[in-house]
Order: sequence, then C-alpha cells, then structure tokens
Amino acid sequence: MMLRDMGGADLVSQGMDSIVTHANVKPPIQHGGDPKAAEARFGVPKDGWLDLSTGINPVAYPLGAVPQKRFARLPLKSECDAILEAARRAYSVPEKAAIVASPGTQALIQMVPTLFAPSSVSIMGPTYGEHAPAWTAAGHELEDVGSICAQAAQPAPFGVVVHPNNPDGRTQTVEGLLAFAEELHGRGGILVVDEAFADVTPDLSVTPHAGDDGLVVLRSFGKFFGLAGVRLGFAVTTFEIAEQLEEKLGPWAVSGPALWAGEQALRDPDWIATTRVRLQADAARLDALLQRSGLDIVGGTDLFRLAQSPKAQDIYQQLGRAGILVRPFAYRPDWLRFGLPGCEEDWVRLENALRS
Amino acid sequence: MMLRDMGGADLVSQGMDSIVTHANVKPPIQHGGDPKAAEARFGVPKDGWLDLSTGINPVAYPLGAVPQKRFARLPLKSECDAILEAARRAYSVPEKAAIVASPGTQALIQMVPTLFAPSSVSIMGPTYGEHAPAWTAAGHELEDVGSICAQAAQPAPFGVVVHPNNPDGRTQTVEGLLAFAEELHGRGGILVVDEAFADVTPDLSVTPHAGDDGLVVLRSFGKFFGLAGVRLGFAVTTFEIAEQLEEKLGPWAVSGPALWAGEQALRDPDWIATTRVRLQADAARLDALLQRSGLDIVGGTDLFRLAQSPKAQDIYQQLGRAGILVRPFAYRPDWLRFGLPGCEEDWVRLENALRS
Repeated sequence: MMLRDMGGADLVSQGMDSIVTHANVKPPIQHGGDPKAAEARFGVPKDGWLDLSTGINPVAYPLGAVPQKRFARLPLKSECDAILEAARRAYSVPEKAAIVASPGTQALIQMVPTLFAPSSVSIMGPTYGEHAPAWTAAGHELEDVGSICAQAAQPAPFGVVVHPNNPDGRTQTVEGLLAFAEELHGRGGILVVDEAFADVTPDLSVTPHAGDDGLVVLRSFGKFFGLAGVRLGFAVTTFEIAEQLEEKLGPWAVSGPALWAGEQALRDPDWIATTRVRLQADAARLDALLQRSGLDIVGGTDLFRLAQSPKAQDIYQQLGRAGILVRPFAYRPDWLRFGLPGCEEDWVRLENALRS
Repeated sequence: MMLRDMGGADLVSQGMDSIVTHANVKPPIQHGGDPKAAEARFGVPKDGWLDLSTGINPVAYPLGAVPQKRFARLPLKSECDAILEAARRAYSVPEKAAIVASPGTQALIQMVPTLFAPSSVSIMGPTYGEHAPAWTAAGHELEDVGSICAQAAQPAPFGVVVHPNNPDGRTQTVEGLLAFAEELHGRGGILVVDEAFADVTPDLSVTPHAGDDGLVVLRSFGKFFGLAGVRLGFAVTTFEIAEQLEEKLGPWAVSGPALWAGEQALRDPDWIATTRVRLQADAARLDALLQRSGLDIVGGTDLFRLAQSPKAQDIYQQLGRAGILVRPFAYRPDWLRFGLPGCEEDWVRLENALRS
C-alpha cells in the first residue's frame, strides 16, 4: 500500500477520482485527507491546512496514553473478544449475526469480493471510489446504477450500497435493503451495505437486522469517533462469511492500540449520544454558512455536507489558496463536499475564506 | 481474525501446533503470547504471568505519548514514505529493491501465496506454523523438507525459508539463499525468506541483497523492537511484486500509531546497536541458566533459546504452575522454547521455578 501514489502535483485532480461513476478506470484512486499533497499547488498555508476534505469527525474521542503493553505484546484473545462485544453493543448487532474486526473497513472492502467466484456486481453510484476497483480486481463485472431499484432490475447477483451514501447522503429503508439482500441471496450472491457513516443515523441502520444469508454490513470505527488513524472496522454478517473473512485476515490483524482505543470509545454511550447531537447541530450550522455563501445544499450526512454551485471550481480554488481543503468531484464539477470544522477558529476561518 | 480460537482450555495443546512438520493440518494454529489462555489449566498466578512463550524482545523500544493526530486522521503519504525510508536504512535495503509496509508480517505471509497460480511449495521445517496453511489456503501443494538442500532437490517452484529459523535458529549463507532464489525464479517461482528474527544477526541477512527476481524477504518490526502490538512488517522484493502487494494491502493499511512508532525506532541506530549487545548477553545468560537446570541448548537466536530435555514436559508443567509460560512442541516433546526474561526479578523467578 505504501508506494501507492495518494498525492500528486496537480491538486485539481487530487480527490477528483475518489468518487466515480465509471469505476473500472484503473487506479490511482484519489482520496481526501492528505492536504500535504495540495502543497505543490497552493504552497504551505501560513496558518496550516484546515482539512475539510474528509467526512471524519474533527472532534476525536478523547484518549489517554496508550498502555505500554498494548504496544509491546501481541493482542490477546480476551482483548479481541472485548472489542467484538463492545462493537456488538454499540452497533446493536443481533445474536444471529457474526462480527469480525479488521484494520480498517478498507481491508474488508477489498476482501469481500475475493470470497466469491468472479461474477457481476451492481454498485449504486456515484459513491465511494474503493468498492468498484475491489470487485474488478477480484474478477467481477461492474454494473453502475443510479438507484437501488435500478440495481434490483440488474441481473448481477452481487450488489453494493453505501448507506447513507457518500457523497450525497441518500438513505434506504431497512426493509428495502433486507429485501434486496434476500433477492441477491436467491441469485447466489450477496449485498454489501457499507455503513461507514451510519453512526449518525442509527435508526436507519440495517446492522441490527444483519445475520441472515446474503447480507454483509461494513462499519467504520474511525469516522464517527474521529480516530481514522487507528485503523479499525467491522463486518457484520453470517457466521459462514465471517469465518472466511477471519481466515483471510489471519491472527493479530488489528493492532493493540486500535483494540484499546476502540473498546473505550465503543463502550461510551454518553459520548456517542452527545456527539450525535453536536454533529447534527454542526451540520445545520455548516448548511447555513454555505447557503449564506451562495451554495445550495444537495445532500450529505451529519459528518459531511454536499454543496452545489455553478462557481464550485472557483470556490475550491479560493478555499485552497486560503489553506482550506474541500473535496471536488470530476464527474460533477458543480459539487463540493465539506467536512465539519472542529473548533470556533476553524468555523471563522471557513466563513472568512468563503466571504473573501 | 477475531473469532479465531487462539486459546483453549487445554494448555498442553496450547502452543503445541504452532510449529508443525506436517502443516496441511487444518487450523487452529496455536501460538504463544497469550498466557490468559493458560489460566484454564494453571489458574491465575499470584504474581501474574511471566510470558516466555514468544520471541519478542521483553525490553521494548521506549515510546513517548502518541501524538493525537496520528490517531485522529488518516496516515499521510509523507508518513508512509518516511517509514519506508527509515526501514530502508535500518535494514540496508538496496536501491534495486522495493519495500512495502504492512500491518504485521502475518498479513504478508498470507498474501504472498495468493499472488501466484496454484503450484507447489517446499517449506524448510520444522518452522513457524503460519507459512504452510497460507500456501495451502491459496491452493498450493506442500512439500515439507528438512533442509535447504533437500528443498532445492524438490521440483516445487516456490520455497519458504525462515531465516534464522524458528525455533531451532538454523541459518543459511547469503550466497546459498540467493542461488536458491535464482533457481526458483528459473522454475517460474519465488523464494520467501522470512527474516522475522534477523535483526539480531544482520551480517547473515539476505535483505541487503534483495531486489532481483525470485526473492521476497519479510521483515518483522515488532519482535526485535519489543512492539509486537503495533502491527508493522515489511516485504523487500522486486518492484513488480511490491506493486501487487500494495494493491492487495490497499490504502491506509498501516495505522498512524504504527507509522509513528516504527519511524522513531527504525531511525535509532544507537538503541539498535545497544539492544543487539544486550540480547546477545541475555541469550548467553539464559543458556547458562537452562544448562544449570539440566537442559541442553540445541539452538535459537538471541531473541529465544531452544532447549532439550527428556523431562521437558515435566518442566513445562512445573513452570506453568509457577506462572511461567514457555513454548512446547507437539512434534518434539523433548523441546521447549524460552523467550528472554526482561528484568532481574523475572530472571530470579525463572531460576527459582526451574530449581524447585
């Protein structure tokens, strides 16, 4: 993974390919979250970068010092059991479902397609850019579709829905997702529901209903808890698929510090509840700020907002010159995705940069 | 990986299968490093466990507090570049070789066999138990061989040598390994040299000679630096194979804290040099202690010692009852592997337990 070019001298292309409609284009898949890559274009901002190019909560779960033994020794079975138990409670995973932990959801996104013989997959797009190449790499044909209904009409036995969707925030009903999973199971396939941003909409989550054949739900720890660097994600699915994923992941796949951080955060319902309220308020505040600046809000979740403007490219440049990085989209040059500012200073900075 | 049973109620079997001769036996592969699993048999020791069942340096590289941003945001490309540069220097990786970082060597052990169409592999055994099932899982036939010469005489195009070998410490010449890799390349295969414990014998390492076709060298960060929980490993190989491994690993495979810890430790030649000297002295001290207790030293590295005794099973039980966990071997009931005690108190405790 390390040599992969995740930056690039041209900022206009940086981030542009991360969310794709025709995803059988070869990598590099570009991502937000690395403003250093933008320095080739905009230089080093005098106040440092304000990175609003991701959907990661800017107010991280407060961690103390990692106990030394979590670095030193291999993770214990008891520690692995504990994180799964904590995740089961936090995500309301039912008894009938199995849960697997991984070093980030990305590993699961890449692994799930390799569990099945090459076939075809429909991906509800536009969406997060890593799903399509993972299925392609495993030999599956891609069918890009614009809605879950169009998806069900396709003959593909495999399906991917990001829920709520990134970047537009589209959601589905639990009933619709479960019915679609059952349909795909009948075709010999599965439905992958990537709930990377579902922490802010728990009532819409399909996770509490997982465990039946044909459904794999992915949960990302790092985004809602603001701890993307720890690398921790989960798959909630059948025991059979879980066992295959565990085999592929192998022993000690998740680091000691990740297990330690994850257990604390997932076992803190007060912080989770408070954070949901705060993110909702901040998302509303961001909408108001962007609307005052002439952008239309066209979607998003409480962790990011999708804005539209005929001047989006100019605004992107203007913000970049002010040291603020947001996410552009090659296929929709009128769209910009904004993450939430994390402190008052950053709110003011964004407001000023949009005004100037 | 999380549901995988790495413990078990029966301590005699715990650890016994970790190093196997006939490795196409199905998992669970048992490992050391989890003394909690021994509590079902021995109870909770009043002074806590002294875990000598691994080859992990008990005196960890001293880390400060992890910078909060390393937890919070996704690892940056610049941070990924920095760890590779640090590893290149620490391991004397030549310009002609590529290097890839992973969340532990285990991920690479499982990934490398999947890069090639199913064929056959010879594994110099007895050795670390995870290689054989990784090749089997990828569809390759196994040939267990007792020496690298026997290995070269096999028709298998793929080969695995753990170097120095675990648990007996056998080493090969650099010339021998390079010639074998060239031979296997001629057969359309590769040689995997797992140098998990090579930090204590840098002069014997084949890493500084990697980069030509047919050779993949694996390096483990956690053992020598006593930081097994961070999950960090490297593959040193051709640019072509490295690129395939990077694709399989995907973006952000290594956590922020692992990149941070690894860079510091790998860039500390003084600590590395001092530690090599200390481990050598401690290994000699352990040999003397075990010999005084009637065990013969039959091999090992400066990170673990392999002892032999007709009373090995009794000694294993005696130590277990004293809260000291060492590594037994199902295929050699007269062998026990000892990790190094990390402080004076632990040395005394081991000595007393062996004497009683």
